[in-house]
Amino acid sequence: MEINYDNVKVIGFDADDTLWINETYFREAEKDFSKLLSRYETVNKIDQELYKKEIKNLEIYGYGVKGFVLSMIEMAVEISNHNVSNKTIEAILNIGKDMINKPVILLKGVENVLNILSKEYRLILVTKGDLLDQERKLNKSGLIDYFHHIEVVSDKKEENYLKLLTHLDIIPSEFLMVGNSLKSDVLPLINIGAHSMHVPFHTTWIHEDVSDIEQTTNNYLTVKNLSDILKVLN
Amino acid sequence: MEINYDNVKVIGFDADDTLWINETYFREAEKDFSKLLSRYETVNKIDQELYKKEIKNLEIYGYGVKGFVLSMIEMAVEISNHNVSNKTIEAILNIGKDMINKPVILLKGVENVLNILSKEYRLILVTKGDLLDQERKLNKSGLIDYFHHIEVVSDKKEENYLKLLTHLDIIPSEFLMVGNSLKSDVLPLINIGAHSMHVPFHTTWIHEDVSDIEQTTNNYLTVKNLSDILKVLN
Repeated sequence: MEINYDNVKVIGFDADDTLWINETYFREAEKDFSKLLSRYETVNKIDQELYKKEIKNLEIYGYGVKGFVLSMIEMAVEISNHNVSNKTIEAILNIGKDMINKPVILLKGVENVLNILSKEYRLILVTKGDLLDQERKLNKSGLIDYFHHIEVVSDKKEENYLKLLTHLDIIPSEFLMVGNSLKSDVLPLINIGAHSMHVPFHTTWIHEDVSDIEQTTNNYLTVKNLSDILKVLN
Repeated sequence: MEINYDNVKVIGFDADDTLWINETYFREAEKDFSKLLSRYETVNKIDQELYKKEIKNLEIYGYGVKGFVLSMIEMAVEISNHNVSNKTIEAILNIGKDMINKPVILLKGVENVLNILSKEYRLILVTKGDLLDQERKLNKSGLIDYFHHIEVVSDKKEENYLKLLTHLDIIPSEFLMVGNSLKSDVLPLINIGAHSMHVPFHTTWIHEDVSDIEQTTNNYLTVKNLSDILKVLN
């Protein structure tokens, strides 16, 4: 069964790792962090413990760089048995500031896709990151004019998307979400009867061999590059 | 000249210190912080330096508890000449977590006002805080059903409000903003031709002697309690 996009009025784009590189910066930060603490533990152990700490703090801090930095500091104090130096604390704070000031590197074909789609659809940015961070990135990206506005959601679960649709005053079949995360940008949408397209971030693709456009189920398409969306929508 | 609110369709409410207590928790946190560092400096000096640090970091961290905690940690390292203990760093992290978990204490008359106004107007929450924090507070407050949605803005300047109006698809005269901050909730609105009502937080009122409703200029009203809005709008 082919998917019918005729009703779509609003297209929501995930930002990080869908329009621009982000995950890469977190991986680099984690590497720098484990180097700073290498006298206390192995890189592997530090990675694992930081991940656990982030998950544990997610409920209280939410997503974004600031919560990530607070988790790194908490972890540094713990893993060093309260012996981490002030210089290291300072270095961790600077990892965070550097992350916030990173350049925005667009993924392949992004500008062209937005330029074409913005003529026919209302485009919005849907992100669970920090609003200030995302506005700053959008400003740096040069893509700001293609978007009607930014929607910040505290999480990307079914209830958050249902609230978003109410807010946009549209019904599920009028909304298409595009993003790299199956869990956040695809499955909740399918569950509420909206559309979704999955554009995995490139690191994922190294381990997978799929054709350019693949309909994994009856409900959503997986495309290799953002540009493939044009073949489907136009 | 009396102000005419006949066109108003959407009322935006500031959250912190307009609907519930917030500033008080920041003042308490600052007091706890200066106690933790009292071996290094006077309370007065610590207060001043923390304020400077917050302002300096505002551009990078934005508003909210997480940026405040990161500024406290940076300050602690600096003011102690890199001698602050890991226990103190931990205590600062806990000040932040405690702040995030504080109970939500509604200001006088809030529920009644929202209940009445929500029958005639679309109410939204307009905040420059952290979305996750504000959603959590709104959930705790029991007020969630009165609001159509939360608008998070990275700042409350004219350009942010203009974007918000575009997003809401309304013209300035159809919007009324209610809040405790002249700088954030009143003046930018007046400058773009929208409506605003000023409800100063109680601590401000100790030093001022005004009647219940006062028209400071031709453009906006200052009211003593949120309930006074009903006298004007109904």
